[in-house]
Amino acid sequence: MVPVTLSYLAVVQGAIIYIDPENPMNLQHQIRQKLVDGIINGAFPPGMKLPSSRKLSQQLDVARNTVVAAYQQLIADGYLVSRQRSGIFVNEKMLESRVGAASKASVAGRAVAAPWILQDYAKRLPGEGSDQLPNWSRYPFPFIDGKFDSTLFPLAEWREASRLSLSVADVVEWSMGSGDADDPMLLNEIRTKILTRRGIQARPDQILITMGTQNSLFLISQLVADDRTTAAIEEPGNFVMRNLLRRRGAAILPQATDDSGLVVSESLADADIVYVTPSHQVPTAVTMPLERRQALMEAAHTGNFVIIEDDYECETSYTDYPLPALRSMDNDGRVIYVASFSNVLAPGVRLGFIVANSAFIERARRLRHNILDHPPLNNQRTAAIFLSLGHYDALMLRLGRVLRERRTALRRALNNVRGIPMEISPEVGGTTYWVRTPDDFDVGNLSVEAERHGVLIEPVSRYYANKEHAENCFRMGVTSLVVDKIRPGVERLVELIREIVKGHVEHLSTSSGNWLTGGALTDAMSGATLLYREVNGWPCTIVYHPDGLMTGQRGFANEDHDSGRWRVDGDRFLRRWDRWVYGEEKAYFIVIDGDKIKFFNDDRQIVDSAFVRLADRTVVTEPLQARKLDP
Amino acid sequence: MVPVTLSYLAVVQGAIIYIDPENPMNLQHQIRQKLVDGIINGAFPPGMKLPSSRKLSQQLDVARNTVVAAYQQLIADGYLVSRQRSGIFVNEKMLESRVGAASKASVAGRAVAAPWILQDYAKRLPGEGSDQLPNWSRYPFPFIDGKFDSTLFPLAEWREASRLSLSVADVVEWSMGSGDADDPMLLNEIRTKILTRRGIQARPDQILITMGTQNSLFLISQLVADDRTTAAIEEPGNFVMRNLLRRRGAAILPQATDDSGLVVSESLADADIVYVTPSHQVPTAVTMPLERRQALMEAAHTGNFVIIEDDYECETSYTDYPLPALRSMDNDGRVIYVASFSNVLAPGVRLGFIVANSAFIERARRLRHNILDHPPLNNQRTAAIFLSLGHYDALMLRLGRVLRERRTALRRALNNVRGIPMEISPEVGGTTYWVRTPDDFDVGNLSVEAERHGVLIEPVSRYYANKEHAENCFRMGVTSLVVDKIRPGVERLVELIREIVKGHVEHLSTSSGNWLTGGALTDAMSGATLLYREVNGWPCTIVYHPDGLMTGQRGFANEDHDSGRWRVDGDRFLRRWDRWVYGEEKAYFIVIDGDKIKFFNDDRQIVDSAFVRLADRTVVTEPLQARKLDP
Repeated sequence: MVPVTLSYLAVVQGAIIYIDPENPMNLQHQIRQKLVDGIINGAFPPGMKLPSSRKLSQQLDVARNTVVAAYQQLIADGYLVSRQRSGIFVNEKMLESRVGAASKASVAGRAVAAPWILQDYAKRLPGEGSDQLPNWSRYPFPFIDGKFDSTLFPLAEWREASRLSLSVADVVEWSMGSGDADDPMLLNEIRTKILTRRGIQARPDQILITMGTQNSLFLISQLVADDRTTAAIEEPGNFVMRNLLRRRGAAILPQATDDSGLVVSESLADADIVYVTPSHQVPTAVTMPLERRQALMEAAHTGNFVIIEDDYECETSYTDYPLPALRSMDNDGRVIYVASFSNVLAPGVRLGFIVANSAFIERARRLRHNILDHPPLNNQRTAAIFLSLGHYDALMLRLGRVLRERRTALRRALNNVRGIPMEISPEVGGTTYWVRTPDDFDVGNLSVEAERHGVLIEPVSRYYANKEHAENCFRMGVTSLVVDKIRPGVERLVELIREIVKGHVEHLSTSSGNWLTGGALTDAMSGATLLYREVNGWPCTIVYHPDGLMTGQRGFANEDHDSGRWRVDGDRFLRRWDRWVYGEEKAYFIVIDGDKIKFFNDDRQIVDSAFVRLADRTVVTEPLQARKLDP
Repeated sequence: MVPVTLSYLAVVQGAIIYIDPENPMNLQHQIRQKLVDGIINGAFPPGMKLPSSRKLSQQLDVARNTVVAAYQQLIADGYLVSRQRSGIFVNEKMLESRVGAASKASVAGRAVAAPWILQDYAKRLPGEGSDQLPNWSRYPFPFIDGKFDSTLFPLAEWREASRLSLSVADVVEWSMGSGDADDPMLLNEIRTKILTRRGIQARPDQILITMGTQNSLFLISQLVADDRTTAAIEEPGNFVMRNLLRRRGAAILPQATDDSGLVVSESLADADIVYVTPSHQVPTAVTMPLERRQALMEAAHTGNFVIIEDDYECETSYTDYPLPALRSMDNDGRVIYVASFSNVLAPGVRLGFIVANSAFIERARRLRHNILDHPPLNNQRTAAIFLSLGHYDALMLRLGRVLRERRTALRRALNNVRGIPMEISPEVGGTTYWVRTPDDFDVGNLSVEAERHGVLIEPVSRYYANKEHAENCFRMGVTSLVVDKIRPGVERLVELIREIVKGHVEHLSTSSGNWLTGGALTDAMSGATLLYREVNGWPCTIVYHPDGLMTGQRGFANEDHDSGRWRVDGDRFLRRWDRWVYGEEKAYFIVIDGDKIKFFNDDRQIVDSAFVRLADRTVVTEPLQARKLDP
């Protein structure tokens, strides 16, 4: 019996074969893979005799059939040959066609000066190449918007579609390549199942499949921009498109944005093309209301400019009322519509599409052909089948729900960050929050600190064309964070902020106003009404009833209610909500300063404050009893 | 019982559901697909009640479980809702998020003048966009090289790899996208299983995965060429690369080719970059021998130019001795190596790669990122697993065998075309023949005629940079033709040629020499020796023995032998080889004209001729008895 520690391990001809039971590839596959590797890299030379299936299966401690099956497949593949009554051998013929080591092979990359031309052309390369952030997936708390959470990948559905796309009939259709055509099935599915959502009607010749949004924007920038072009871009806006247009030599016209997205003003009349993200403005995530969209289309008609509509996150939108795409309001083919499957399927699949008038699509198709022929047809067909089975809409529902939960979780977590003035108003759709901190707060410093502590937040400077802009904002996204990780992530971030602002924040020892404890505290809080403004700008009213009950309502229309208990314990004020603040009991030192109430934590740092209206019966003729701090 | 004609058909709410038993998608999938389509396009409005599974299964004449399963999946997907004791309904919620028809949707593509900018930029588009041939797959006999025969696609192996690539562990790795990195597993497999075949050693940072050769050449042309560049290209050579370089403004230097491929001469010294296809020269398919390769590398070192090595068809090469790639002889990182999986896997998958020194790869990676981020990672992983299981080498063996058979079949078919002088010499490797016809023969005309008759041959003019070049050549490839279709295809082509040359060819009625029949014919042929030159330039000697046996040997080293029987029947000479000429008996009229023998077909058109040495005993003092043609 092979000791456990040695199981899944075999030594063949001095080469160790190790089988990993955890490996998703089944044992038979692993054995084949290891044997093939050995044959290829010469560990198992041509003509070598392999151990009998019985012997190998014993060594590896796997079923003999597993080894037999592996051997048989390799014999079928021509790797091994079975000789009557003498055993199984590595096939000499298999590697015959390989270039022998004899051939004068150089250790490539050997340090030698490259020809001048390579050196020289190096200088004239696309400037800002990769707009990469640190590899977010390695961090525990990547609050980076638009990154993909593989747990959201519709694995079963994609497997099903993938399997079906490999039917003989389908393979015949996609395997040969298509020159510059796209999969007709996918075009049809996009028309009927996706574009209808956006109110867009399009013929197949008005759609081009691309390798995703980056590829779409590259193609478009090549076709509509050069050094004679003036391109208006949202400020702040998508730096990817800005860089692409700059590289084309276009003049960039930063156009202001507000709570409704791109501002429509006369200045747009100077633009030849206008790049806009109406669904969720990049980076602020605000949605452009219908009126603004109509105004933009009107301006486009008057100024006769082309609109590039990047329907970012169109599919993870969950505003209650879906809005028609600009393309659906386009009567004279001036809108070039761009969308992607990356948020829905997976960025790794790299599929997106452009909708525009057929003349433009025809030219984009020709350019695409010169660059890469066409996006892989097997993926096109798989996506088409995926759509045809109705998984897409189902996935939309699921994604919407999941991301809404995460977004709420982020808002609640941020809402707990009291005492440090942070704003995410206006609260908008999308999967990201645009967090505003006090003007003097250095976000750049914070993001570096945060990264060092495993928390990724996105500074926003790269979204601005103008170098002078608000430095006190950052973005937090939830697309790649499961709900459970959101609160701890935010809390770790907050600790860092507290560290940074330490000293600048009010301390109990130096606070103005009256520090209340014991009976005085109880008297003051009984019947007191507190008025907050929450992180997302919502008002919140809390009443502390004399009987220890507390009730709260938040939102402009009191969307949200909760109740809980409060009490005083010595010099502390304690409260616990049923739902809010995660239903946890918190203890504070309380100071009342005129019509303001301040909450201090155990470190005696201020963590919250609100306006307070004390109960009428609380006569405050003279300052409430105040205490000096214990030393 | 539902009548057969009506089975697989159901009418739901006036919409017809038809299930196609031939459809590769199983019935359950089809039913789901049809129902989803109906829901999406409004045929089945929200809230509509669906027929019971029993009813629908009866109408469709399928097992009830099939319908039940389809319903259940759609309920899980949220398309349908099941209401206690009242049935199954279309879910109102599902389509809530869609933009209602109310939204001002325009009939896209409506005829309206596009903005000037679109009109205007239209003029400045890549000139020769698609270098497309007619859609070859629709023709019965597409002798177009490099086209893919889907029957060669390793379906089972790819399915297996594809399934494995969808393991949870793998999906986590590829689904998120990688910014600009490639799948490390694929890089490793390419290094160990492909580059070793070519004698190339490369580190992962010296390899870039691309969307196939077109994409590779595009990236390279962007990085190493502009209006200051002189680029040498084989003449004839790959027009795709020539067009890409022209578009970059580079000066094209056509460099002659011979039977060893690119000619290495002083003129190369003027070039900054040299594009070369050593494995199988495009379009002539000749292979560059080792000496020439060494000379080229020497010249590159002296002239300090960059070599772009397009290893076209490296993997379908079956010259007996594999040659090392130029890259493997590259000591100072001046060779940029390009290869593709299109011939092996499928063009539809669109995967290829570049090997160069890491500095270049790094820049190519940045450019690729700007254009399309990265090739789809699910395909990268699938290909990696495909390689890791050893299918690649196995496939090489299979491909090599199949294509060799087809190539032989093409040569044999062409060899039968006697009487019309055609040459495919020098016979070279690769999957294509470069067919040379008489100088005055109009190939352009032939290819048009042939296409009209379902035969695609490729005229070669587009491979020439210089406009004045041989017009009498065309290419015939076999990558997309199964063996059985090769002979009939060639025969159909030959009929057309005969049509075209009719009148120009020698006719029995006007032939010089003596037309032999009966005894005279028997006497003449007994012991006669004929000397041929075959289509591929090989000599062929045939001896007609007096006893009716005939023996033949062909090739410079008599590589091939065959024997058969000959006889005379009235005024006809009949012969049948055991193997040659498909072992079929053929009848001819025979004319002997000095030391030349001529064969005429039933139409009395000359179809073959050879040098003849008559048996010594045949005394030809006076002209052999000649006959006038019967009227």
